[in-house]
Amino acid sequence: MVSSLFNDTLLVNTQSHDYPIIITQNSDMGAQIAPYIRGKQVLIVTNDTVAPLYLEPLQTTLSHDFDVAVCVLPDGEQYKNQDSINQIYDVLMTHHFNRDVTLVALGGGVVGDMTGFAAASFMRGVDFIQIPTTLLSQVDSSVGGKTGINHPKGKNMIGAFWQPRMVLADMSTLTTLPARELSAGLAEVIKYALIMDADFLTWLEEKLPAMMALDLAVLGEAVKRCCSYKAKVVAQDEREAGQRALLNFGHTFGHVIETHEGYGNWLHGEAVAAGMVQAAVLSEMLGWLNQSDVIRIKNVLAQANLPTTPPLIATETALGLMGHDKKVKRGQIRLILLKSLGEAVLTTEFATEQLRDVLTPATC
Amino acid sequence: MVSSLFNDTLLVNTQSHDYPIIITQNSDMGAQIAPYIRGKQVLIVTNDTVAPLYLEPLQTTLSHDFDVAVCVLPDGEQYKNQDSINQIYDVLMTHHFNRDVTLVALGGGVVGDMTGFAAASFMRGVDFIQIPTTLLSQVDSSVGGKTGINHPKGKNMIGAFWQPRMVLADMSTLTTLPARELSAGLAEVIKYALIMDADFLTWLEEKLPAMMALDLAVLGEAVKRCCSYKAKVVAQDEREAGQRALLNFGHTFGHVIETHEGYGNWLHGEAVAAGMVQAAVLSEMLGWLNQSDVIRIKNVLAQANLPTTPPLIATETALGLMGHDKKVKRGQIRLILLKSLGEAVLTTEFATEQLRDVLTPATC
Repeated sequence: MVSSLFNDTLLVNTQSHDYPIIITQNSDMGAQIAPYIRGKQVLIVTNDTVAPLYLEPLQTTLSHDFDVAVCVLPDGEQYKNQDSINQIYDVLMTHHFNRDVTLVALGGGVVGDMTGFAAASFMRGVDFIQIPTTLLSQVDSSVGGKTGINHPKGKNMIGAFWQPRMVLADMSTLTTLPARELSAGLAEVIKYALIMDADFLTWLEEKLPAMMALDLAVLGEAVKRCCSYKAKVVAQDEREAGQRALLNFGHTFGHVIETHEGYGNWLHGEAVAAGMVQAAVLSEMLGWLNQSDVIRIKNVLAQANLPTTPPLIATETALGLMGHDKKVKRGQIRLILLKSLGEAVLTTEFATEQLRDVLTPATC
Repeated sequence: MVSSLFNDTLLVNTQSHDYPIIITQNSDMGAQIAPYIRGKQVLIVTNDTVAPLYLEPLQTTLSHDFDVAVCVLPDGEQYKNQDSINQIYDVLMTHHFNRDVTLVALGGGVVGDMTGFAAASFMRGVDFIQIPTTLLSQVDSSVGGKTGINHPKGKNMIGAFWQPRMVLADMSTLTTLPARELSAGLAEVIKYALIMDADFLTWLEEKLPAMMALDLAVLGEAVKRCCSYKAKVVAQDEREAGQRALLNFGHTFGHVIETHEGYGNWLHGEAVAAGMVQAAVLSEMLGWLNQSDVIRIKNVLAQANLPTTPPLIATETALGLMGHDKKVKRGQIRLILLKSLGEAVLTTEFATEQLRDVLTPATC
C-alpha cells in the first residue's frame, strides 16, 4: 500500500501557553523541534527500546546548536516510578543544567509522562517537548498536559499538569512499533469515537484495515482527529473538573485490570479496551445502549486485535481497587458511561449491584 | 512586656486563585482553617519538634468534622528530601485519600515546602493550607507558592509553584521558637527593608528590641508588612521571570554557605544574613552603596543576633557552587545587588574579579 504524504499542524490552547502538534512523516526530528527550544541546554530522555531506533540522528542534529545530554531509561511501565525520575534529576544536576534546559521526551507514553513530570518539577518547572513514538502517546499524551508516575499502590498517583512547548508526531515511527502496541493505541482512537463522534466510529470501521496495514496518511488523519477532539475538551477543562473526565472512558475499569495484573503485563490500551466493553455493558444495563451497540463496540475492538473481556479478577478485589481511583468523589464511585454511541456522561446513576455484576468474571 | 492583640487579614492574588493570610494570636487553629477545607479528608503534615506543641488541639478540633490523618516527619533541613515526600504519599495512599484531600502544613518552612510539593504532585494537585510556626516561614513561605525539596547536589532543585488555600500565621507560635530561629526569621524581615523600603529599615532599627522580646503585636505588624511586600511582587511575577528574583537578595551567596556547610548547620536566615552583607559589599564596590550603608546593614543584622560574615570557603569552591544556582542565566552569573538602601536590581554589572574578591575569605 502506498502512503500519500501527511503533514499537518494543530494548535493547542492551554491556560499557560499555546503550542503546536506537528503531525508528519519521515521528518528530520532535530530540525523540526529546534525552533521551539528556547535555551542552549537539551536533555533527551528516552528508553532502551527507542534509543537504538531514533536517538542518534536526533542527538546529532541537536548537537550542532545545543549542549545535549541524554538519559536512557529501561523500557516499561514498571519503570514509571520515582527511581526513574531521580535518574533524570541526576543527569540534569551532573550536567549543571539550569532553568534554561529543555527536556525532550523521545518515546511512548511512559517516557512522555515521566519526562513531563521531571520537567514540571525540576527547578519548579522547565520547558519540555514531546516526540511520541507510539500511536497511544500520539493520540493520548500529546494533548492535555498530564504528566506523572505510578505509586506502588496506584497508577498515575504522583504527577502534575504541565504543558509541552511543542509535540512532534512523526507517523513513520509507527513502522517500528510492535503490532500489539499499534492495537493498544487504536483502543484510544476508538475511545474518541465512542465518547464524542458516532460518525468517526463509522469512519474507523471502514479505515481500520488500512491503519493496521500502516497507511501513514490514514493514521495521521486519525491522530489529527483524536488530538482535535482532546484539545477541544481540554481547552474547556484543563484541570479535569468536569468535561475532561469523560476522556477516561474505560479507564476506571482498565486501571483495575492494570493494577491487578501488575503494570506492564496488560498494555494500557488493552486494559482500556476491555474496560470500555465493561462500561458499555453497564450502560446497556441502564438502558442507554442496546445490545447491538455493545456488539458493535466489541466488533470494532476485535477488528483492531484488542481484548474485549477482562482477565479473571474476584469481584470484591476489583471493587477494592476501584476505591483508589481518582474518579472517586467522597467515597461514591463515579463512572463514565455511554448515553448513546458518541455521547459519554460521568455518572453515579447505577446500582452498586449492577457494577458488581459487571465486575464479576464472565459477565462481559 | 504586654502585647496588644494583633488580628489582621491580607488577601493574596495569584494566577490560580486568591487566598487569605490570617495573622493573629492565641487562635483555635482548627476553627480558623476549617472554613477553607473543601472536602472531608485532611492530612496534617508536621515534624517531631512542632507536633508535641501544637498538633493535638488542631487534630482534635478538625476530627469533629473531617477524616484526619497525620504524618510526623523528622525535624530538619536534612530531611527536606524525596524520602520525606514518599512518606507523605504513603500516608495518603494508606488512608485511601483522593483528590478531595486537603494537606495542612503545621511547622516551619521545611514542613511547608515539602507539604506544598506533596500537595502539588499528589494526583496532579490537591489543596493545601499553611500554618507556619516560625517567623521565617510566616514572612517568607506564606506568599509566593514556592514548594519543593532539596537534591543531594543542590537546594530547592525539585519542586513546583503551588498556591495554598489559606495561611494561618499565629504569632503565639513564636513564643516556643528558639531565639536562634527567631533571629533567622528576622534576616528575611530585614531583607524586605533593604530591597524595598528604606523607611521600613528605620522602623526596624527602632522596633527590633521589642521583636526580640516577643512583642507579638509588633511581630504581627512586621509579618503583615513583609507579606504585603512579597504579595505585591509575586502578583506581578508569579513564575519568577523578573521582578520576583529580587526577593532572593542575599540568597545566591547564602546558598553557597548552606550547600558548603551542609544543610541544617547554618540556618537559612543566618546564611542569608551573611549573604546580604556579601551582596552589600559588592554593591559598595560598584559605587552603589557607601561605606556607612554597609555598616548600617551589618549593625541591623547584629542587632538581630545574626552573623555578618560567611564561614571560611575557598574562593574557587564558592564560585563552583554558584554555578548550580537558579539565578544563573546561560552560564553568566546574575546577582541581586543594591542600587541604594531600599532598591535592589538583578544585574551582571560586576567584574568576575570583584565577585571573586567578595567570595574570598576575610573580605567581608
